[in-house]
Amino acid sequence: MAAPLAERHCVVCKPGTPTLPREAVDTMLGQLSDWAVIDAGDHLELTKTIRFKGFMPGVDLVDAIAPIAEAEGHHPDLHLSYGSLKVDLWTHAAQGLTENDFILAAKIDRITPS
Amino acid sequence: MAAPLAERHCVVCKPGTPTLPREAVDTMLGQLSDWAVIDAGDHLELTKTIRFKGFMPGVDLVDAIAPIAEAEGHHPDLHLSYGSLKVDLWTHAAQGLTENDFILAAKIDRITPS
Repeated sequence: MAAPLAERHCVVCKPGTPTLPREAVDTMLGQLSDWAVIDAGDHLELTKTIRFKGFMPGVDLVDAIAPIAEAEGHHPDLHLSYGSLKVDLWTHAAQGLTENDFILAAKIDRITPS
Repeated sequence: MAAPLAERHCVVCKPGTPTLPREAVDTMLGQLSDWAVIDAGDHLELTKTIRFKGFMPGVDLVDAIAPIAEAEGHHPDLHLSYGSLKVDLWTHAAQGLTENDFILAAKIDRITPS
């Protein structure tokens, strides 16, 4: 049995890496907290919005997510506003969702308030 | 003569605060570095995209901008991606641009690489 997503590590994606089949996407989405899959036009993305009071809790989240992204060599788009942080994940080299996105999402779940 | 934008401070905006006339917007825009005024649909925004290598320089910028925003009580939207940070400024209470946006932009210019 595969290890939980949050305990696995991203692998290097090269151009042409295949995206996950929809069934795999749905299965892995079920292992995450409050993420959604959205159609961003030419690719699917994983997205989650975390809400809080003020601005600094969002800065703290950026600071907490950054070393995880660096360690995995896989980086989200982070949209910080007063009161919310929106995290978007997709794999550019695959033009869509790969296991890397779900692994990083699961690791982000571990450090974000539920 | 008014102090340079970067040396002034944001004032509290209440709902109904008027937006700046276009002439004032253009004059103050001329005092900033690499900002643009864009029409975001129902309001104007000031926007600037800062580019860098990797991800952590953008995290460092978020960390540097945050205390300035907190001190001024005026907060930008920060869109951090691998290689770039997009900063958007507008005044929600005025539904558009006020002097506060230009003051914060000038302070951000002081700490960002040109």
